[in-house]
Amino acid sequence: MEGVDYLRDERSKAQFDVETMKVAWAGSPEAFLVCDRMAKLVANDPVFEKFSKPMLGRKELFKNTLRKTAHAWKLVNDLHLTEEEAKWLRHYIDEPSYTDLQWEMFVPALEGQGTEEQKKKWVPLAKTMQIIGTYAQTELGHGSNVQGLETTATFDRQSDEFVIHSPTLTSSKWWPGGLAKVTTHAIVYARLIIDGHFYGVHGFIVQLRSLEDHSPLPGITLGDIGMKFGHGTYNTMDNGVARFDRVRIPRDQMLMRVSQVTKEGKYMKSNVPRQLGYATMVSVRQTIVSDASKALSRAVCIATRYSAIRRQFGSRDGGPETQVLDYKTQQSRLFPLVASAFAFRFASDWLKLLYTDVKQRLEVNDFSTLPEVHACTAGFKSLTTAATAEGIEECRKLCGGHGYLISSGLPELFAFYVPACTYEGENVVMLLQVARFLVKTVSDLGNKQPVGTAAYLGRASLLVQKNCVVQTAEDWLNPIAILEAFEARAARMAVGCCQRLAEFKSPEEGFAELSSDLAEASLAHCQVIVVSTFIRRLQQDIPGRGVKQALEVLCNVYALFLLHKHQGDFLATGYLTPKQASLANDQLRTLYSKVRPNAIALVDSFNHTDHYLSSVLGRYDGNVYPKLYEAALKDPLNDSDIADGIHQYVQPILKQKLHSSKL
Amino acid sequence: MEGVDYLRDERSKAQFDVETMKVAWAGSPEAFLVCDRMAKLVANDPVFEKFSKPMLGRKELFKNTLRKTAHAWKLVNDLHLTEEEAKWLRHYIDEPSYTDLQWEMFVPALEGQGTEEQKKKWVPLAKTMQIIGTYAQTELGHGSNVQGLETTATFDRQSDEFVIHSPTLTSSKWWPGGLAKVTTHAIVYARLIIDGHFYGVHGFIVQLRSLEDHSPLPGITLGDIGMKFGHGTYNTMDNGVARFDRVRIPRDQMLMRVSQVTKEGKYMKSNVPRQLGYATMVSVRQTIVSDASKALSRAVCIATRYSAIRRQFGSRDGGPETQVLDYKTQQSRLFPLVASAFAFRFASDWLKLLYTDVKQRLEVNDFSTLPEVHACTAGFKSLTTAATAEGIEECRKLCGGHGYLISSGLPELFAFYVPACTYEGENVVMLLQVARFLVKTVSDLGNKQPVGTAAYLGRASLLVQKNCVVQTAEDWLNPIAILEAFEARAARMAVGCCQRLAEFKSPEEGFAELSSDLAEASLAHCQVIVVSTFIRRLQQDIPGRGVKQALEVLCNVYALFLLHKHQGDFLATGYLTPKQASLANDQLRTLYSKVRPNAIALVDSFNHTDHYLSSVLGRYDGNVYPKLYEAALKDPLNDSDIADGIHQYVQPILKQKLHSSKL
Ligand SMILES: Cc1cc2nc3c(=O)[nH]c(=O)nc-3n(C[C@H](O)[C@H](O)[C@H](O)COP(=O)(O)OP(=O)(O)OC[C@H]3O[C@@H](n4cnc5c(N)ncnc54)[C@H](O)[C@@H]3O)c2cc1C
Ligand SMILES: Cc1cc2nc3c(=O)[nH]c(=O)nc-3n(C[C@H](O)[C@H](O)[C@H](O)COP(=O)(O)OP(=O)(O)OC[C@H]3O[C@@H](n4cnc5c(N)ncnc54)[C@H](O)[C@@H]3O)c2cc1C
Ligand SMILES: [Ca+2]
Repeated sequence: MEGVDYLRDERSKAQFDVETMKVAWAGSPEAFLVCDRMAKLVANDPVFEKFSKPMLGRKELFKNTLRKTAHAWKLVNDLHLTEEEAKWLRHYIDEPSYTDLQWEMFVPALEGQGTEEQKKKWVPLAKTMQIIGTYAQTELGHGSNVQGLETTATFDRQSDEFVIHSPTLTSSKWWPGGLAKVTTHAIVYARLIIDGHFYGVHGFIVQLRSLEDHSPLPGITLGDIGMKFGHGTYNTMDNGVARFDRVRIPRDQMLMRVSQVTKEGKYMKSNVPRQLGYATMVSVRQTIVSDASKALSRAVCIATRYSAIRRQFGSRDGGPETQVLDYKTQQSRLFPLVASAFAFRFASDWLKLLYTDVKQRLEVNDFSTLPEVHACTAGFKSLTTAATAEGIEECRKLCGGHGYLISSGLPELFAFYVPACTYEGENVVMLLQVARFLVKTVSDLGNKQPVGTAAYLGRASLLVQKNCVVQTAEDWLNPIAILEAFEARAARMAVGCCQRLAEFKSPEEGFAELSSDLAEASLAHCQVIVVSTFIRRLQQDIPGRGVKQALEVLCNVYALFLLHKHQGDFLATGYLTPKQASLANDQLRTLYSKVRPNAIALVDSFNHTDHYLSSVLGRYDGNVYPKLYEAALKDPLNDSDIADGIHQYVQPILKQKLHSSKL
Repeated sequence: MEGVDYLRDERSKAQFDVETMKVAWAGSPEAFLVCDRMAKLVANDPVFEKFSKPMLGRKELFKNTLRKTAHAWKLVNDLHLTEEEAKWLRHYIDEPSYTDLQWEMFVPALEGQGTEEQKKKWVPLAKTMQIIGTYAQTELGHGSNVQGLETTATFDRQSDEFVIHSPTLTSSKWWPGGLAKVTTHAIVYARLIIDGHFYGVHGFIVQLRSLEDHSPLPGITLGDIGMKFGHGTYNTMDNGVARFDRVRIPRDQMLMRVSQVTKEGKYMKSNVPRQLGYATMVSVRQTIVSDASKALSRAVCIATRYSAIRRQFGSRDGGPETQVLDYKTQQSRLFPLVASAFAFRFASDWLKLLYTDVKQRLEVNDFSTLPEVHACTAGFKSLTTAATAEGIEECRKLCGGHGYLISSGLPELFAFYVPACTYEGENVVMLLQVARFLVKTVSDLGNKQPVGTAAYLGRASLLVQKNCVVQTAEDWLNPIAILEAFEARAARMAVGCCQRLAEFKSPEEGFAELSSDLAEASLAHCQVIVVSTFIRRLQQDIPGRGVKQALEVLCNVYALFLLHKHQGDFLATGYLTPKQASLANDQLRTLYSKVRPNAIALVDSFNHTDHYLSSVLGRYDGNVYPKLYEAALKDPLNDSDIADGIHQYVQPILKQKLHSSKL
């Protein structure tokens, strides 16, 4: 049966060139080639087998990932992979490991917060893996509120050292990846104390373990924080707890790019602007948005392929039943998620450009765009991770009962993905930051013209008056109509909130009381940005037979799906009439029919290997049923016909001898 | 530290009598006592310890549950527990096991579909556990579409037997609980064939395993279908696959209450009405709605208690930070879920009454209410399970990073609960059944007065004209105003769909094309029922200081939360003005402040033991942080300072000797 392709007919229906779409998805021909090569390298290497993960106990699981990580590092060296290639290699291995922390948190923190001297010393050690580091910020008692961290770093003038200490149980560092068993170093965030005065939270390079025998250094207690959601997921990693009992580090291990402590114990701000950190933040959030699009693309790829294979009901005269992909309810749940994957992908591409722009501005001390950039990236983070987490679970449900099997790949994908809603800025806290920006922007409208993604708010007075001119369902295909609708709704919500804030005794009280409405206004603002980014992407040249057309359909699906979902906002603000909202919904239905023939080809464009998907339901060849069976047979419970425990605990019941048996 | 109560202050704020609320939640003083006794029996018995579940491999997990199940059955016998008590015992043990299938599927199917003779033979065997049975309907290729099942039962006149056979791979039975390793019998659903003619799908009692040595009988292949979502969850159970190779069973093992096959091979309908099955269906769905309320009550109990303990931001002058429960965003995500738990609870109480009513009617051959009952219970199933699944995950997110730990209890609760959206009628398929009913009801309005939960549609012509009269936020506290708003919106959506259906060539084509909108109309209909059930419950006498008042607040929260969430519908149908919708939202905010002082007492009213919750974050005493630490230390990775794999896979990297080491 190898070599069959149960989805061949579906593939032949595609109205666009899949190979060119793959490049559009990857971002560039070069990016496509790197991804493709790394994905195949991983898929073809037996060390990276993933199937057995759910069957392993915690220790074996952890050890297994250590092995994969070592093997990956060997490949990086043997094949002389670039940092970019190595990043993709890690991505396709698809298991959280301490090297994620090393490359995505430890090294960037050193590079962003260290002085030139510090970077010269520590970065090469990290990049050659002579030390392994983690990012130890969160404590048992504090995550979102970084300024509330309790770990202390007290300057000891005598010895020219800092004393790192955990004064309370809740000050224990809690969550950092790799901290429990692997990492030799950590950047520990602690409140700086000099002569009994507090100077805020700073990062300190602390060695945790002996480089000789890996044992924890004196005064440092390390441990694992226990199992997390899912089987593999973050259980392959040792997220850890650390307590410090007056641990001493040299003064030059405080990260001193932005502020310094001198030998004399003087606290000084350097002339490097604090804002420098923003560029790193944009880059981290770009990665998060990109990861969201990848995770969602995986889920929709599985659900779409399986929905084309799965048939249920609708057989006529004994013919085959209907593919569930043909049901409008299935389409209305699935296709907006396919469209979202593309929307987030293009949003992340655009964030890369934004990153370059921010960096260039920072170099010439232009901080004018920072508040807008801060709000926009915080909003993107929240919007894309929330939609992706929800979308993955929806895809699981779209697969019916079989989606509940681990072999469908979806439960693990969900369990792996959901913490993205919480880490790197809890999603609701993020939306409230966007809200602060919106309130400020709207309040300042008289004095200050908003820029970048908030520029449309400069037209707020117009947008709160103008009404939608759509008259037919076709009018809803016009990007100008779509964009104006999203802008008008968001502007009206922001302005509305600001007006109501004015009714409160103090702005702070009003903000607290209305925070839930403010979060909704923030979401509306973020949707303007994602929709407009998608639209702008399509104004560029996009080569390939039918590629641009297929993407235009998705862009409209994305926008009109959101419009329908949030129709309450659009109607409440009065920009749309019920009739216009209903026309949008009619158009949306028509668009689903346009997506349908392209559905399989669209998810093929992600170029996911079967290894990466690790889903029987999402197999490229659609050979679902025999492979489900095969996967099931590998369960340890199938080792014997009569399972362990049957004689002891079931037979006595059946034979009515329970009373006399020992349990 | 034992004996502390970090939530004592919170508890003292309650404005109602918790002990009476417990009774209101349980349904009656007797029900409360049974639950309380069974919950404590389980909590105090070390055999039922659950903590180690996530650490066990599949085989140990399975065996462990067999042991618990045997112990439970021993208790049932030793303590002479009633069937009701035994049901609660199983409930509090909180692990899927083959006895669930025995008591909730196998026995009811025998009782509902067997003849008197069959019941006399089989039911006592099952009730004494001399045989253990499962319900084998779903196949690899068919779940929702039961009429599409492929397993065949061919009558052999010669031997007076049926031949049970699996003709294709996709005809393999797939999913039945206990099927792989435990059950000795199954009710196998198969298409009946007599002389080459098909007579639809029927149930057959098939023995699977030898009662002597438990080995599978000749011609029967049994196996486990592999791991499922979560650690414990359904992995404690052996959901199985079965294939039949021309397995013979005596003719009298076809369940023949409704139709029979005679010795001569004649297929006959008995004079027992087919509709008899409906009573069982109502009872099954009552259980599902009740389970939804329980699962949601667990999740909100955890999230509410932890939100009162968790403090983040907002410290003034070095004082304590703000309890996250005080943030309006936290309240607006959490309190509607608390209200939903109560709403679903009262809905399930009402379904019990409906069950009695249906049974009484069936006894006198009154089938007039069945279509309405069918739609109402299908809709309840879909609405409550979908909201509960989503609500559990929201509660997990409300707990920030710590909610991602298994020790929070929330990941396992989610993974355990979500299949309820799929089994016993996939949720979207259910909504489409409701939609068929609505379309029929509205089309027949001229001729037939709708009854029961659909009675309000009889006033459709009025409801599509009348507009909301609310003028102040207080007006939204009036149950009449609320109910009319929900009725008007639902009626308008149903009527609107019907009008649009008329524009299509055929009703079937229209139904398919508009199915997504029809599903939305169905949801609106179901919400009418849940809201009105809640309101009617409060029109009864409810004793206890402040109990009724506290429930009234929750009822309003539930309704106005839905109104805000679906504001698009309310506005699109024109029943509400934007101003009125906004007043509802203002009132909702006020109501959150009224819930706040009662929050902890409300979740205490569920009377959940710490054992049942199995959540460090949801502990009754609020002693979260030390216990999180304790729980973490039990992870096997903490057995040694230097974990297995470090020497082999990490040290060579650090010492730059990877090239020469063997991986
Ligand atoms: C898998 C995983 C990996 C992680 N890895 C690391 C790591 O390597 N290093 C590290 O340092 N940390 C790590 N973390 C920790 C992570 O950064 C924190 O969990 C995250 O910052 C959220 O903080 P919290 O847990 O304190 O949530 P909390 O802030 O306690 O959130 C709880 C609830 O309170 C609400 N809330 C909080 N503040 C407000 C407010 N002002 N207004 C309204 N509502 C509010 C939130 O919305 C949320 O609903 C990791 C976490 C996870 C889950
Ligand atoms: C934990 C668990 C335990 C179970 N236990 C048992 C058991 O003990 N015994 C047993 O017999 N079975 C059992 N089942 C199986 C369960 O009953 C089925 O999974 C369920 O009936 C759903 O059917 P399906 O899997 O075929 O979904 P499908 O019907 O294949 O659903 C896939 C998708 O197709 C859509 N779809 C299907 N038909 C239509 C339509 N007409 N219109 C629009 N959309 C449609 C659905 O909405 C869904 O999105 C169990 C399942 C689980 C997960
Ligand atoms: Ca496991």
